[in-house]
Amino acid sequence: MIPLAEYRAEHVRLAVEGPVATITLNRPERKNPLTFDSYAELGALFRAAAREEQVKVFVIAGSGGNFCSGGDVHEIIGPLLERDTKGLMQFTAMTGELVKAMRACPQPIIAAVDGVAAGAGAILAMSADLRLATPRAKVAFLFNRVGLAGCDMGACAILPRIIGQGRASELLYLGRSMGADEGLAWGFFNALHAPEELDAKAAALAGEIAAGPSFGHAMTKRMLQMEWAMSVEQAIEAEAVAQALCMTTQDFRRAYEAFAAKQRPVFKGD
Amino acid sequence: MIPLAEYRAEHVRLAVEGPVATITLNRPERKNPLTFDSYAELGALFRAAAREEQVKVFVIAGSGGNFCSGGDVHEIIGPLLERDTKGLMQFTAMTGELVKAMRACPQPIIAAVDGVAAGAGAILAMSADLRLATPRAKVAFLFNRVGLAGCDMGACAILPRIIGQGRASELLYLGRSMGADEGLAWGFFNALHAPEELDAKAAALAGEIAAGPSFGHAMTKRMLQMEWAMSVEQAIEAEAVAQALCMTTQDFRRAYEAFAAKQRPVFKGD
Amino acid sequence: MIPLAEYRAEHVRLAVEGPVATITLNRPERKNPLTFDSYAELGALFRAAAREEQVKVFVIAGSGGNFCSGGDVHEIIGPLLERDTKGLMQFTAMTGELVKAMRACPQPIIAAVDGVAAGAGAILAMSADLRLATPRAKVAFLFNRVGLAGCDMGACAILPRIIGQGRASELLYLGRSMGADEGLAWGFFNALHAPEELDAKAAALAGEIAAGPSFGHAMTKRMLQMEWAMSVEQAIEAEAVAQALCMTTQDFRRAYEAFAAKQRPVFKGD
Repeated sequence: MIPLAEYRAEHVRLAVEGPVATITLNRPERKNPLTFDSYAELGALFRAAAREEQVKVFVIAGSGGNFCSGGDVHEIIGPLLERDTKGLMQFTAMTGELVKAMRACPQPIIAAVDGVAAGAGAILAMSADLRLATPRAKVAFLFNRVGLAGCDMGACAILPRIIGQGRASELLYLGRSMGADEGLAWGFFNALHAPEELDAKAAALAGEIAAGPSFGHAMTKRMLQMEWAMSVEQAIEAEAVAQALCMTTQDFRRAYEAFAAKQRPVFKGD
Repeated sequence: MIPLAEYRAEHVRLAVEGPVATITLNRPERKNPLTFDSYAELGALFRAAAREEQVKVFVIAGSGGNFCSGGDVHEIIGPLLERDTKGLMQFTAMTGELVKAMRACPQPIIAAVDGVAAGAGAILAMSADLRLATPRAKVAFLFNRVGLAGCDMGACAILPRIIGQGRASELLYLGRSMGADEGLAWGFFNALHAPEELDAKAAALAGEIAAGPSFGHAMTKRMLQMEWAMSVEQAIEAEAVAQALCMTTQDFRRAYEAFAAKQRPVFKGD
Repeated sequence: MIPLAEYRAEHVRLAVEGPVATITLNRPERKNPLTFDSYAELGALFRAAAREEQVKVFVIAGSGGNFCSGGDVHEIIGPLLERDTKGLMQFTAMTGELVKAMRACPQPIIAAVDGVAAGAGAILAMSADLRLATPRAKVAFLFNRVGLAGCDMGACAILPRIIGQGRASELLYLGRSMGADEGLAWGFFNALHAPEELDAKAAALAGEIAAGPSFGHAMTKRMLQMEWAMSVEQAIEAEAVAQALCMTTQDFRRAYEAFAAKQRPVFKGD
């Protein structure tokens, strides 16, 4: 397994600085569309993160004032029209794998959304754990506008849990853009920042999370995912086991000792 | 199967214009209460919609400045008091069937809520896909006020997913009215319009949805329903299959070809 | 089974007045932390409530300007560091039992949150049915700050359903305080009141709920819980049975007769 710090990404930009890995979608002249290659590479990166030791948090961002315009019309939609049934399933299975990988990796993922986040770009933002944006951000689940259904890569399950069933229905049936203010008011975005500050704010948030107890954070992420469709009782039972495990980590002891010494704890993730 | 355009509704008003079917609750002198007959007819209409070819969207509205005052006290509650256990179950099963039919029909449903939406009227609004309202709309899940539980026709499952568990609990325990501004802020209503504009706005919204890819829309509605209690992974798998199917439709090709020709796509639902 | 009115609580204060039982966390000099003893007593109280006849509603509150600072650092966290695996599981199972007991008891629970609600204090507020607060309330799910995971006592399942998945993720990864205004805007709090009015407002709300049909309320609470991870269809079926049962109660008849007589119904819970 190659550590992410040594990973050579070809279709996206990957920068690892200390515990933070920043993935940048980097075709600004086209608003950073996804291609078959970048889909596959993103999926591989987040899958690789499961065994990663150094990286504790991901940031995913666009470039040139936009986040991601989704699947490229010429490089993806055109070729899909030539595919047979099996070929279409291979595509939708691959895109779904990307969301699964984002939800399965132990590191929290922060999406930094400036400008356009459309189609699969909206899905990338939705599939992150936290979302920062700029006042000019526009998020469009516009699958209906290309003749498809809103049920793409988990949107019908995930989006309603973030913004509510009625608002999600509207976005999925109309394909209209959700503006930044709406996104903030509805709980899609966690905060808005000026475009020139977005990267720094995302880095600061990543740093804050990276300084936390990473074993605990990974467990939080896993349980947020696992408990999605559990009963309340099952969730409580599952958390009792998970938290008891976390109580055996050194980070739990470090926090107590720091508190007793009136210091800030320094977590190490073990 | 009778097409909806030829259906003779007796207890509600049904108007089919092109791809939009508008159902109007039409006893304005009593704020449009439901009766045993109108419950049954509404259920039959939405069930019939499953095999409908022409109608792509429903609008459900009240008349005379109100949406629906719920089950009629004299025509429903009084008679229920005379029923035995089996008779009561027949009633609650029938009312539940109406919500199931609304959720199962492939067409998105828009509720246009002016004035009072109380009891089963609130349920009708809740069970739609999108909800428009006027500033004087009042939605009351007032089952507790008639001595019953808030768990009526799916309210304890559906309402929390629209407005959140805490707000839903408040409405169900207190039976108080949710005002229009609250309803908008909480995500119950998608938009507010002046009373004199409500019908036109609902028709415009219906027209916009009807112009979309109806096979895709039906799939969106089905998946929003099916994924309600799935795990995230299951939902992603289900969507991969559903969206691959949508990619075999002509509407997907039409959108691509319109894009290439720099035109708006004209969807036909196949 | 001891009626709650005769119950002698040792580690919290319990006051039963008519149909309302008020539990007060009462160690104001330490912001009302929980101890092994108070955890156990709270769990026993809510479990006992299942067979209670007199009490129809609970209020849980703090004292001295704060709600609850969570598990005491010296009396809980310190000792936990000395426990073996089995001992840790006993603790997390016990704390989880408290939330289960709060969700399982037939009475709605109102949390009255002034000042700090941190850690297990935040969980107590989350696990209530309704939440009132003051403008100075601060709710912190700060488990990450003590080196642990956010998945404590059901938080990863319950909190997202109240405030949405994105906002819950933020609170659980950062451990930061949710302020009163945020809590109101996000649907965590049902209303804010001035500190000097909080107790009276909580009592008034409790009185209003206690005057309702308590058999119906208990069914509402049970179904809100049971339907958590059901499909929509299952939920509708479950509610049809539950509501038919409620239609056999005298309170349903009382409401009808009061309506016919143009009076307010007096519910008795049978």
